[in-house]
Amino acid sequence: MANGADALCDTFLANGIDTCFANPGTSEMHFVAALDRKPQMRCFLGLFEGVVTGAADGYARMAGKPAATLLHTGPGLANGLANMHNARRAFTPMVNVVGDHAHYHLPNDAALTTDIESLARPMSRHVRRIAGPEDVSRATAESIAAASAAPGGVSTLILPADAAWSTVDPDASIAKAEWRAAAEADPQMVERAAAAARSGGKPMFLLAGDALSGNALKKAAAIAERFGGRIAAEQTNRRIERGVGRPPVERMPYVVEQAMAFLEGVTDLILVGSKTPVTFFAYPNLPTSPVPPGCRVTRLAERSDDLPGAIDLLGQALGLNDEIGWSGARTEPPPLRHGDLTAEAVLVSVTHLMPENAIVADEAVTSGRSFFKLSHGAAPHDHIQVAGGAIGGGLPLALGAAIACPDRKVLSLQADGSGMYTNQALWSMARENADVCVVVFANSRYAILQGELKNVGADEPGENANRMLRFDSPAVDWVAMAKSMGMDGARAETAETFHDLFKSAMGRRGPFLIEACV
Amino acid sequence: MANGADALCDTFLANGIDTCFANPGTSEMHFVAALDRKPQMRCFLGLFEGVVTGAADGYARMAGKPAATLLHTGPGLANGLANMHNARRAFTPMVNVVGDHAHYHLPNDAALTTDIESLARPMSRHVRRIAGPEDVSRATAESIAAASAAPGGVSTLILPADAAWSTVDPDASIAKAEWRAAAEADPQMVERAAAAARSGGKPMFLLAGDALSGNALKKAAAIAERFGGRIAAEQTNRRIERGVGRPPVERMPYVVEQAMAFLEGVTDLILVGSKTPVTFFAYPNLPTSPVPPGCRVTRLAERSDDLPGAIDLLGQALGLNDEIGWSGARTEPPPLRHGDLTAEAVLVSVTHLMPENAIVADEAVTSGRSFFKLSHGAAPHDHIQVAGGAIGGGLPLALGAAIACPDRKVLSLQADGSGMYTNQALWSMARENADVCVVVFANSRYAILQGELKNVGADEPGENANRMLRFDSPAVDWVAMAKSMGMDGARAETAETFHDLFKSAMGRRGPFLIEACV
Repeated sequence: MANGADALCDTFLANGIDTCFANPGTSEMHFVAALDRKPQMRCFLGLFEGVVTGAADGYARMAGKPAATLLHTGPGLANGLANMHNARRAFTPMVNVVGDHAHYHLPNDAALTTDIESLARPMSRHVRRIAGPEDVSRATAESIAAASAAPGGVSTLILPADAAWSTVDPDASIAKAEWRAAAEADPQMVERAAAAARSGGKPMFLLAGDALSGNALKKAAAIAERFGGRIAAEQTNRRIERGVGRPPVERMPYVVEQAMAFLEGVTDLILVGSKTPVTFFAYPNLPTSPVPPGCRVTRLAERSDDLPGAIDLLGQALGLNDEIGWSGARTEPPPLRHGDLTAEAVLVSVTHLMPENAIVADEAVTSGRSFFKLSHGAAPHDHIQVAGGAIGGGLPLALGAAIACPDRKVLSLQADGSGMYTNQALWSMARENADVCVVVFANSRYAILQGELKNVGADEPGENANRMLRFDSPAVDWVAMAKSMGMDGARAETAETFHDLFKSAMGRRGPFLIEACV
Repeated sequence: MANGADALCDTFLANGIDTCFANPGTSEMHFVAALDRKPQMRCFLGLFEGVVTGAADGYARMAGKPAATLLHTGPGLANGLANMHNARRAFTPMVNVVGDHAHYHLPNDAALTTDIESLARPMSRHVRRIAGPEDVSRATAESIAAASAAPGGVSTLILPADAAWSTVDPDASIAKAEWRAAAEADPQMVERAAAAARSGGKPMFLLAGDALSGNALKKAAAIAERFGGRIAAEQTNRRIERGVGRPPVERMPYVVEQAMAFLEGVTDLILVGSKTPVTFFAYPNLPTSPVPPGCRVTRLAERSDDLPGAIDLLGQALGLNDEIGWSGARTEPPPLRHGDLTAEAVLVSVTHLMPENAIVADEAVTSGRSFFKLSHGAAPHDHIQVAGGAIGGGLPLALGAAIACPDRKVLSLQADGSGMYTNQALWSMARENADVCVVVFANSRYAILQGELKNVGADEPGENANRMLRFDSPAVDWVAMAKSMGMDGARAETAETFHDLFKSAMGRRGPFLIEACV
């Protein structure tokens, strides 16, 4: 006898969603029992919900379709919110199933009762509570559609326990999700963007989403080359194709003064699915946008538009034929470093040694700031990054990417402060024998905050500030932590040791952690 | 020149709040700089926000006054919500300071922008956004008052960065927090409760809050004894005084059938600050309240009333003089277990060996279910537990209790599944040299869910269910994990080894972890 939980699984499967990252609780046991009846659905346990939602983000970015997540009531959702936030900023499709009490138990205000809708809304584009067993399939299809509609987003589907456990008509049909495709760019916007490109100044094409990969990226680079302009990506991005043979895209810098320098001289900023740049934070006496005065901002396409198509239309409007090609200037990898290990030495070795078609999951924060400059000449790879500024996304992203692409090597470039947030991801990597090499930049401090404290005018941090910005006493032993969760690892304190360790890690499959003492 | 952040610190200090659990970010750097100027404020770093809010919960339960927390924007708050939820269910006073963007930066929708109010409200009794620098002190005092008003609760105070960094009039006064005291119980309710006690049936006094300690507890036990009744506590509680010389309080069982058996024959349930019991979850074909049909429910006092005072008034209404005493029957500790280690063997050894005045922070979940029955004869101790059903509260509670009571031994009875959620608390224990002995019940499974899956009618879990309910492959090595964060530990696989290890742990100060393989 099929129940609502079966209808939920069947609707996922009928709509191509066969991967579920989960941390279930009592109210989801019927869903677990239903999943148990569907071996086609692949289930991955996270030992904390931040791992679950972050992995679903990484999975969807690489698989090009959403994963489901399974979360337990309001607190379980709450634990997953930070990485849902990152997913929402990356426009990643994701369907979260949040189990809740049976509807008639809610007025009893039992211990786990919470206002799930209020918690979910800030991080979701679509929140829907299932009304009863007969509503399960339709509500699920709606959630899948809302998550999948361009440019992608986070759906949260609240599953009351009684909707899961009640029987449904076995002949009821399973709903198909339908959603709008990405729209064609507005011809007037294309004309205006073409005029901006032709203005004779120094245009910059700020690319987002699908404009950062494949032919779209190459064509954008060719157009920029032709009109004396540059291409760039926003400060955080869903996915960028990089390395030899791909146009070297620079990212908008995080530091305000650097972002202003980055945009200096730009006369026309042309937005290709991106937003007008704003600073990550506001600071006293600094602007909140790095765009220089007098720079014209013109939008070619909205984020929900077909961005490769918009670039094609722009090319046509500019009278360029389809054969226009990017010149493909080759960047050489920088020379290897020697001696004491520095973040730059790590990044240079990674650039030299990463295998073709690797996926780089980047939450290296301060240690990774020079990665883009250094690695244009690396082997072709995909770069995915924590997109919403909520730390703790990196390890889960790497996990999810590895599950989406089991035949590709995943490199997790991970700051230690953020890595601690969701260290439980290491356990899932070990369990799934995920092909991830985690490189932890172990400096035992929130280096980004030490810089920020200096910005606010504090000279030398005193005891209270140091107690909040450093965690070197005791230092976390990342190799021991990895081993405690079943993942092998090793430590590097010199550039040479790191290089050798990383080289050997590239030659093996399966999870491995390198603690880079920088 | 003082700024808003200074006013915030000064208002905390002027109102007796001198402890801040923190995980700061950029938008809180002015607050960090201000804390750096106030060495009277003690700051404790958590490497994840769930540690921060859970520790503030444990601190306040033992210190009897709130701690402040410092959280970074919406995602930082989100990470702390699960343990704020536990605190709200325990009626723990807590003041969360959540840093946000400068008010004029919010419309730019920078990466970390979120609807903080929507996230905070479900777990807070009071949410307040600071309107500007001159509003800081008043808003802070209001938040302290809201947290402190009986019976205690969670306040969330949103601090825009520009309110923190802008200068304030140095002559402006620092606001004092004022709040209502616990109310005297309604005389009519007292009369009705007295009539229920006298009814000649079998009354049960269901105690909450301050009725579970000191003379109030003893007096309630004496009244129950006199009228042929029992005393009990709710399933989850803020703090209970237990052990030799204290009346043995039983807790409402978690399992529905056991709760129904627990209440069988009770004719009058007298609520002393407690709620009418409801089941933790709803199940098909089971009631959502274990209260037997025909049992009268009478309320002596509201949770926000003066509960010890209400018990005094009840005694007077019952014509009992002030000398009425509880008979104080001594319960002997159960005999030690031998051979393979079981959860019960652990609990028996703990009962025998725990030092006087210990604090037991209990998140042992299934492994700890028999703890109450076994430990009535233990040395006098305080028992605190995760109150809202959101797992991951235990280790942070233990940390906070140890910081509130540095002269008392803290025992953390910790299930492994929940312990993984906030394992970062071990690092804070090591850093603060907190006098905590963590006992991890390592069974590598969500045992509570295995039971629940059986309840829903699944016989033998298949692959998908096992992949979501067991985490034994690989098993977490808790000793290695503790050592990775600077905490010493050891493993026990027999009752004898555990007994010896625990005995030796009781003889030393400072953090120590025992992995009990059960």
